[in-house]
Amino acid sequence: MLSFVNDYSETACPEILERLRAFGREKTDGYGEDPYSERAKEKIREAISCPEAAIYFLVGGTQTNATVLDAILGKAEGVIAAKTGHINAHEAGAVELLGHKVLAIPEKDGKIEAAELQKFCEEFLTEPTHDHMVWPGAVYVSQPTEYGTLYSRAELQKIRELCSRYDLKLYLDGARLGYALATEGNDLELADIAALTDAFYIGGTKQGALMGEAVVFPGGAPKHFFSIMKQHGALLAKGFLLGLQFDTLFTDNLYVRLSKNAVACAKRLREILVSKGYVLAPETRSNQTFVVIEEEKAKALSEKIGFGYWGPYSESSSVYRFVCSVTTEISEVEALKELL
Amino acid sequence: MLSFVNDYSETACPEILERLRAFGREKTDGYGEDPYSERAKEKIREAISCPEAAIYFLVGGTQTNATVLDAILGKAEGVIAAKTGHINAHEAGAVELLGHKVLAIPEKDGKIEAAELQKFCEEFLTEPTHDHMVWPGAVYVSQPTEYGTLYSRAELQKIRELCSRYDLKLYLDGARLGYALATEGNDLELADIAALTDAFYIGGTKQGALMGEAVVFPGGAPKHFFSIMKQHGALLAKGFLLGLQFDTLFTDNLYVRLSKNAVACAKRLREILVSKGYVLAPETRSNQTFVVIEEEKAKALSEKIGFGYWGPYSESSSVYRFVCSVTTEISEVEALKELL
Amino acid sequence: MLSFVNDYSETACPEILERLRAFGREKTDGYGEDPYSERAKEKIREAISCPEAAIYFLVGGTQTNATVLDAILGKAEGVIAAKTGHINAHEAGAVELLGHKVLAIPEKDGKIEAAELQKFCEEFLTEPTHDHMVWPGAVYVSQPTEYGTLYSRAELQKIRELCSRYDLKLYLDGARLGYALATEGNDLELADIAALTDAFYIGGTKQGALMGEAVVFPGGAPKHFFSIMKQHGALLAKGFLLGLQFDTLFTDNLYVRLSKNAVACAKRLREILVSKGYVLAPETRSNQTFVVIEEEKAKALSEKIGFGYWGPYSESSSVYRFVCSVTTEISEVEALKELL
Amino acid sequence: MLSFVNDYSETACPEILERLRAFGREKTDGYGEDPYSERAKEKIREAISCPEAAIYFLVGGTQTNATVLDAILGKAEGVIAAKTGHINAHEAGAVELLGHKVLAIPEKDGKIEAAELQKFCEEFLTEPTHDHMVWPGAVYVSQPTEYGTLYSRAELQKIRELCSRYDLKLYLDGARLGYALATEGNDLELADIAALTDAFYIGGTKQGALMGEAVVFPGGAPKHFFSIMKQHGALLAKGFLLGLQFDTLFTDNLYVRLSKNAVACAKRLREILVSKGYVLAPETRSNQTFVVIEEEKAKALSEKIGFGYWGPYSESSSVYRFVCSVTTEISEVEALKELL
Repeated sequence: MLSFVNDYSETACPEILERLRAFGREKTDGYGEDPYSERAKEKIREAISCPEAAIYFLVGGTQTNATVLDAILGKAEGVIAAKTGHINAHEAGAVELLGHKVLAIPEKDGKIEAAELQKFCEEFLTEPTHDHMVWPGAVYVSQPTEYGTLYSRAELQKIRELCSRYDLKLYLDGARLGYALATEGNDLELADIAALTDAFYIGGTKQGALMGEAVVFPGGAPKHFFSIMKQHGALLAKGFLLGLQFDTLFTDNLYVRLSKNAVACAKRLREILVSKGYVLAPETRSNQTFVVIEEEKAKALSEKIGFGYWGPYSESSSVYRFVCSVTTEISEVEALKELL
Repeated sequence: MLSFVNDYSETACPEILERLRAFGREKTDGYGEDPYSERAKEKIREAISCPEAAIYFLVGGTQTNATVLDAILGKAEGVIAAKTGHINAHEAGAVELLGHKVLAIPEKDGKIEAAELQKFCEEFLTEPTHDHMVWPGAVYVSQPTEYGTLYSRAELQKIRELCSRYDLKLYLDGARLGYALATEGNDLELADIAALTDAFYIGGTKQGALMGEAVVFPGGAPKHFFSIMKQHGALLAKGFLLGLQFDTLFTDNLYVRLSKNAVACAKRLREILVSKGYVLAPETRSNQTFVVIEEEKAKALSEKIGFGYWGPYSESSSVYRFVCSVTTEISEVEALKELL
Repeated sequence: MLSFVNDYSETACPEILERLRAFGREKTDGYGEDPYSERAKEKIREAISCPEAAIYFLVGGTQTNATVLDAILGKAEGVIAAKTGHINAHEAGAVELLGHKVLAIPEKDGKIEAAELQKFCEEFLTEPTHDHMVWPGAVYVSQPTEYGTLYSRAELQKIRELCSRYDLKLYLDGARLGYALATEGNDLELADIAALTDAFYIGGTKQGALMGEAVVFPGGAPKHFFSIMKQHGALLAKGFLLGLQFDTLFTDNLYVRLSKNAVACAKRLREILVSKGYVLAPETRSNQTFVVIEEEKAKALSEKIGFGYWGPYSESSSVYRFVCSVTTEISEVEALKELL
Repeated sequence: MLSFVNDYSETACPEILERLRAFGREKTDGYGEDPYSERAKEKIREAISCPEAAIYFLVGGTQTNATVLDAILGKAEGVIAAKTGHINAHEAGAVELLGHKVLAIPEKDGKIEAAELQKFCEEFLTEPTHDHMVWPGAVYVSQPTEYGTLYSRAELQKIRELCSRYDLKLYLDGARLGYALATEGNDLELADIAALTDAFYIGGTKQGALMGEAVVFPGGAPKHFFSIMKQHGALLAKGFLLGLQFDTLFTDNLYVRLSKNAVACAKRLREILVSKGYVLAPETRSNQTFVVIEEEKAKALSEKIGFGYWGPYSESSSVYRFVCSVTTEISEVEALKELL
């Protein structure tokens, strides 16, 4: 059955599977202290034009967000996030587990607007009893957002300026960062992100790796970060597995090439949907497609195609999500023409 | 170069690599809610003779220890462990990060003795101000221990009795459990462990998997355990990868067969060492071999063989560790005859 | 200068000061294990018609909220509160410090409405991925609320029913509970609160004590609660000081008599304000009075009278707060006639 | 009945009770932002010869230790303490609750020896896998110790040197600091402590105050410390009560005068005990007296005198503790001549 359920339902892209196979019984050091991890870091430093960056490989997104935020937030500090931000909504309170409040602010299509951020900070500072409140210590953004939308370079720059003004760290969650980079109209490159943030991660799990996220601290790592990873249960014994995968993804621009395939498939998918008379939700972008389908039709389709429920639309219809991944083949998309 | 450095320096056993390859582009659900994870759980339930057990797959050992202990400990409770226990010594304070003190007690060859456990509990209860102290809420044991030693069935039964008497949960860290099962003289089977503990895990990472640990709650899972995993960053998006691996390991007794190979290689390794006049440290057992080597000799050997430093022995010699793993080939061990 | 700034700006009511003086050099046991604490607990049990209640004395409100919520919430659980609830807004993230998310929901005049609570719970349960989210484990209400408003018995009953339906604990913050009890029209008595909640506290600090809050668990205390208090730094060495004060407050109905004085003064204060043409904010109730004053007028008044800024009203005026306390004398209120 | 049970079994010294009485209905600001707190801080700054010190008033010892240590420790850092240190033994895991391991090392008579501290640090740093362990981030000492013993100036200087060498903060718990200052032979003055530590507290609760501990940061406070106090439930609403008390204690050298009385009483108590043939435990010092008593004798005495059990001595005798406090009268001690 055709499936567009999500971008983490297959093992890994063929290049990584082949790399693992070819690696055979080679033995190497544990905990990321191996030459493959080192090589992957070098390639990432080059890709982000930031030779001084400290880079670490963690296993998953929630783990990465919680570990990095705990490392960069000070005592009595919380993190500002869009109300729809993954850390606020769908990480089961991982940030709070470590003692930090998520300070949720209004969003638009999943994005923080500079004006809202500024308003929050101003209201905090002018509140006479603000030292009885949680101090904002960092801002969390995701690129693309949970809604598939993208920050432009100008937008992120504005947020950066506010962060500098209000003494906030800026952290970017790049679980699907490759898809953002590959999206038409995107003008926020890896080097920009490295220049504008205090920390970010380049997602692997949803971008063709078995698992793995590459955390980047452009200005150097927080003190004891290796031990912090260990303490958070985020240090993989066979860390070389992550190094091998990111080495593969950042060789010959594979990371972006794979993402481009997903985005191209998504674009074609949307053309087909529109040609069939379906209505797309406005935030449709990058590798995710949000489409309105009548309930009955959706039920029928679900017997032949895998896709996900997103939310209610009208009384008789809902929004559904079709996700193209790095391994989606254009022929799979074309096959939809018959089925939709 | 021959390497006996540890049991997590290769990717995975051939059976798992082949399984991944054969799986191809098959798509399945995320977060462990897939048929392969379900099948693996069924096989484990059968292997441990505990049809009611709740089973979850996590990624690594420190993560597993911290997540499970946090889930089973109550407020104001700590966990009793041998002073040399991994959670006390080498997990960077992961248990404390979540608010629980590790109550370290004396050990013998890495094992908790029932008498010491009883003494600790009695002294706690008879201390007039014990409600100003951390309550013991659980006992942590590892099988094999950090020193490679094994609990016998009788020993674990005694600890279980004390746990029941003092209202303590019993948790067993089985990072290398397969090697224990495969060791000559072991009489503590999986079914015994399931019958005696409140929670334990069957290690995968050091037993031939890419990564992964199977947590077993013989009497059912703590409330909200799935969400607790998510909150601790311990829920793998591509959970089916863990299911696939444990399904493979628990098919046709592979888990024990692989472990037996490692233990047999270790046995042969010890024969060779002894025949060459080396002195073995007394705790040598299962897949780990601890041997005394003169510093100069060790330095020379290290150019041809990989092995690890364990600790000081005399002024001119130290204890070194040689580890055989599930993929060690007997020919590699025989090759040592020439080199040692 | 006359002061109506708040209800915690004096040492204590004369009865407590006299009790301390009379106590002289008497010696008694520490940590609340003294006869005065026991006697105070007995009197409170009688006052709340709950002979089985477990009662503990803590020092301050934030400490009490955080300690009790940490004790009653399970792992991966958060606490539902009105967005304006003290734990969400003005306790510097004390609940999050201990690992629990505050799940803020909309409020009306500081109160949670049953419909909103039900909506939140329903949406949570029907959200397909809710086990990736923080589980609601308790509901926090304050009586009176941060806005001085009161829950009626019927309103709290409805919330209780929802808590039972959705498996939530109900916790009531009674920092100013006496003022609520003394307010005209209040129909939520101490016995009702004990019957409807899982835990609540009777405030002392803002009700005439030097410091101290009496936590009540109508159905018995959480396991190890004494040690939990110690662990949270919430166990006063000279606990008898708290016992003495609550013994005094719950003798001859002093707690309510003192509160009635404050509420009567507040009522007279409002009559005077209205007679002088001032506009009261709608939520004005119990011992707190919210009044609109032109900025210039407010500035002039502030030289003769102490009162607090509450928030903006119009471009040229703001809302200010006048608080009457247990020690306010009616003559002080009458003196305002000349000054306003 | 005569009582020597401990130094926190009475309300407060007469000077503080009188100060409270005289304060009457004066109103002042909350949360320690009042002129009395300010004045007390000025007097303490003078007493410790450290005009730049940041000073805060908290309520109790466990609360103070946990709040300050959480504020000064970094991520993945723990605190080194003597095995007998209060934070390790009798604070119910308050430091661990906030995520930090207590790294217990051997002690002598309750004191950390420089050699042991150095050994611990050296072993940590030379352990190849030390980044898998908790980093030592601070050293905790108490003056006097839990055994009543005192650090000399030279001893604390050595510890300070090691702290500087190994990048550790030095924190001193002064719950009974006045008694140490008043003890014959003590050469560690307040100014020395301010010069040698990163943080310490001057105890009030056991030194004649109703409650209260004065935290001193000689080099300035950690960022957001006021909010950190609030977050830890350690900010007293009526903070002026603490200010009033420390203002009283640091006027006309009352703090030391009161302590001297206790120490003089204790000295006389020991003379009487020795003259009666009792054996003192070696660590007897400052205001605490440890004496060996036959069980039967102790039982008989306990009907006429209050004192506390400390620990076992021989089969038929135990060590008991007699504590003199700031309010003990010499006539009470003399009265023992008849009773012992």
